[in-house]
Amino acid sequence: DEVRAFAREIVEKEIGKHAADGLGRVDYAVASGGAMVLKHSEAFLGTSRVSNWFTKGVRSDAVKMLQPSFGQPGECFPLKGNNGFVEIKLRTAIVPEAITLEHVSKSVAFDRSSAPKDCKILGWLHNGVDDTTEKKHLLTEFTYDLEKSNAQTFDVNPSVVVIDTIRLEFMSNHGSPTHTCIYRVRVHGHTHESNVS
Amino acid sequence: DEVRAFAREIVEKEIGKHAADGLGRVDYAVASGGAMVLKHSEAFLGTSRVSNWFTKGVRSDAVKMLQPSFGQPGECFPLKGNNGFVEIKLRTAIVPEAITLEHVSKSVAFDRSSAPKDCKILGWLHNGVDDTTEKKHLLTEFTYDLEKSNAQTFDVNPSVVVIDTIRLEFMSNHGSPTHTCIYRVRVHGHTHESNVS
Amino acid sequence: DEVRAFAREIVEKEIGKHAADGLGRVDYAVASGGAMVLKHSEAFLGTSRVSNWFTKGVRSDAVKMLQPSFGQPGECFPLKGNNGFVEIKLRTAIVPEAITLEHVSKSVAFDRSSAPKDCKILGWLHNGVDDTTEKKHLLTEFTYDLEKSNAQTFDVNPSVVVIDTIRLEFMSNHGSPTHTCIYRVRVHGHTHESNVS
Ligand SMILES: [K+]
Ligand SMILES: [K+]
Ligand SMILES: [K+]
Repeated sequence: DEVRAFAREIVEKEIGKHAADGLGRVDYAVASGGAMVLKHSEAFLGTSRVSNWFTKGVRSDAVKMLQPSFGQPGECFPLKGNNGFVEIKLRTAIVPEAITLEHVSKSVAFDRSSAPKDCKILGWLHNGVDDTTEKKHLLTEFTYDLEKSNAQTFDVNPSVVVIDTIRLEFMSNHGSPTHTCIYRVRVHGHTHESNVS
Repeated sequence: DEVRAFAREIVEKEIGKHAADGLGRVDYAVASGGAMVLKHSEAFLGTSRVSNWFTKGVRSDAVKMLQPSFGQPGECFPLKGNNGFVEIKLRTAIVPEAITLEHVSKSVAFDRSSAPKDCKILGWLHNGVDDTTEKKHLLTEFTYDLEKSNAQTFDVNPSVVVIDTIRLEFMSNHGSPTHTCIYRVRVHGHTHESNVS
Repeated sequence: DEVRAFAREIVEKEIGKHAADGLGRVDYAVASGGAMVLKHSEAFLGTSRVSNWFTKGVRSDAVKMLQPSFGQPGECFPLKGNNGFVEIKLRTAIVPEAITLEHVSKSVAFDRSSAPKDCKILGWLHNGVDDTTEKKHLLTEFTYDLEKSNAQTFDVNPSVVVIDTIRLEFMSNHGSPTHTCIYRVRVHGHTHESNVS
């Protein structure tokens, strides 16, 4: 009976986390919360992809990087080549705590050579005037590891800088010479009003 | 080994329930089953929401109240103010057993002050002629509790009334003066043909 | 502590599988991976279904058979009568290993009489010229069992034939005289390049 209680407690906690967007952690970059893609390096146009519209150089399907993938291969945004970037306007200004980069799960992937590898995250407060006067802070550098869980969370260098925009730069991928797929980027943190979580 | 068997049995049961629409219980108000929103109090139009079309005073995104939210904040329908209502035509006539009201999970929510609080459910058989001659039955009154699980199920007063329409009225919310978000309403019960479940 | 470790290990494995498209197995028939419906027997047009467009005799919502259903009743494609077929072009040529046929979970279904029953899967390499010269291989015959798990996987007769197209034929269903619903068909296997999984 004690064993059953133990098991049930663990199961309920883990399923709760899974049901709560997989991680059970607030994401200030989620599209349904109002975040959006501001800019990205050149998109990869595979042979079979449907036509797609642009707004100010951002493709409409770039939003896939800010949405859940539900364990489906292909629910990503492909960028050309083995390096590139994406800039994301968050829902609101926050003190960042961590970044999650997600690729498709190994067990259902057709090919994981398109996963990003060496990455860097910059963050800043968008002044809406020009890019050049905005001070960009290095939040974290990391390597996406194909052997670990498909959603990998990296803590941000501790400081209390407030940001509302981030830039993910990937300097390499896991082998594809043609393209790199971004399944999802999440940004965790807290607003000034809320207490440190 | 016995412990492993125990644990596996619990895990499989709980994941099965999670995979079966979260509760593993038939929902006669689910949009994919043919239910629809008939009427709602005034919608809240936030600053960033995209334009949206109407049919007979029902906004097209009102259907979100009859669809899963998949752990995503914002996958709801916002009504103006801290009180209001929504009327839902069920898939078919049933003897109601319980109502589930769902809000976004605490762990991924930006703000839960927009959750409904004191609620009342009415049910009746829609005669398609006029509202005034339809006898409306009080099915249940409840308070949505922010400290409990995000999907909260309330039993209906036992009786064998047959209904095909319900009305959720919320008399208060958890603090937002501007709007109340309805993530999902489900209606459980059985048809005349099926045995009592 | 050992018990907790056991339980956690099982939970994490099972949730990982659930999060990875439910089965944690590559599906060469998934729409997001580039597979498509080539042909199907006559669609069932219920009274309440919205209008829908065709391309070469394939209805646009036939793609539902190649997409996840997320525990929702109605997320299927209904074919007329109690027998019929669907032909699916896979993402790429593979050596097939197994087929999964999925219906809605018992616990949330309104009615399961529309589930397919006796089925047969044929597979071949589409030469793009004419159907008549393509040698069709019988991959497996099976019965979809309403008492088992809602996603049922059947091994393919072992051989090393390479295919890129399959045909699901259902010869009976679980009782509905009017229609048969296909929730999802998956095709598992390996490409020539990959090792046998
Ligand atoms: K995605
Ligand atoms: K919803
Ligand atoms: K489906």
